[in-house]
Amino acid sequence: MSYETNLQIGAQASPGDVFKALTEPKRLAQWWTSDTRGSGSKIGDVLEFWFGDFCQKFEVKALKPGKLVHWKATKEGVDECVGTEITFSLSTDEVQTLARFRHSGWKENSEFFAHCSMKWATFLLSLKDLLEKSKGHPAPNDVEINHN
Amino acid sequence: MSYETNLQIGAQASPGDVFKALTEPKRLAQWWTSDTRGSGSKIGDVLEFWFGDFCQKFEVKALKPGKLVHWKATKEGVDECVGTEITFSLSTDEVQTLARFRHSGWKENSEFFAHCSMKWATFLLSLKDLLEKSKGHPAPNDVEINHN
Repeated sequence: MSYETNLQIGAQASPGDVFKALTEPKRLAQWWTSDTRGSGSKIGDVLEFWFGDFCQKFEVKALKPGKLVHWKATKEGVDECVGTEITFSLSTDEVQTLARFRHSGWKENSEFFAHCSMKWATFLLSLKDLLEKSKGHPAPNDVEINHN
Repeated sequence: MSYETNLQIGAQASPGDVFKALTEPKRLAQWWTSDTRGSGSKIGDVLEFWFGDFCQKFEVKALKPGKLVHWKATKEGVDECVGTEITFSLSTDEVQTLARFRHSGWKENSEFFAHCSMKWATFLLSLKDLLEKSKGHPAPNDVEINHN
């Protein structure tokens, strides 16, 4: 048994622009965490997402321009996240690009898992704002979901 | 195999106030949908959540004041939701009440499921704002997650 987060947003932006926002550190830094390092443009690249002193790293496992971004959490970082995988699947309809988000491979249905799912939702809204209003709200200026 | 949404928020409010916001139609109307009808204060009650001409009904299955709210979707409403169950489990730490949300029993990992998960996240933020700032953003003034 494993658990996963499933979310979806639609943004008025091209699939190419959404793909850039998911692969270029400079763009990732504008919606997820301001301190994004590494590289995400080819398979095997490692992206580093820093939150103060804490860093979560993901290795790029698959990329299809304008269609798919697939990462896997490396062995560094939070124990519960190790080996979990993230995919962003992009599709379009008449008016928007839809970004379907999955974060799979969680071993336990824990509070931390529910917390991360909630944070992901706020970061996807940040991505939508970046794409549509040219301004996201990345950490450390992210939306608060609790008081920890 | 079934799928579920897991989310959590923390709000600076008492468990009793959070429980009220999850059981009283007048309070539910201030964070989920402005047109909330029915009753949610005892087991067997049915709550009606109206979004324009569409109505989603939930029957109250369990209640523990300040601790738990459990609903089950009735046979009316969206096919994919029929029989799904929602629980809000409340707990506290030094500074807040944590509300753990689960929406379980989804038969398919569909786009609609991902869409609903994302909407739930925005409504939980609305609940948090209602509890802390006395102002939620219920439908039809809810946060847009796409352009449908």
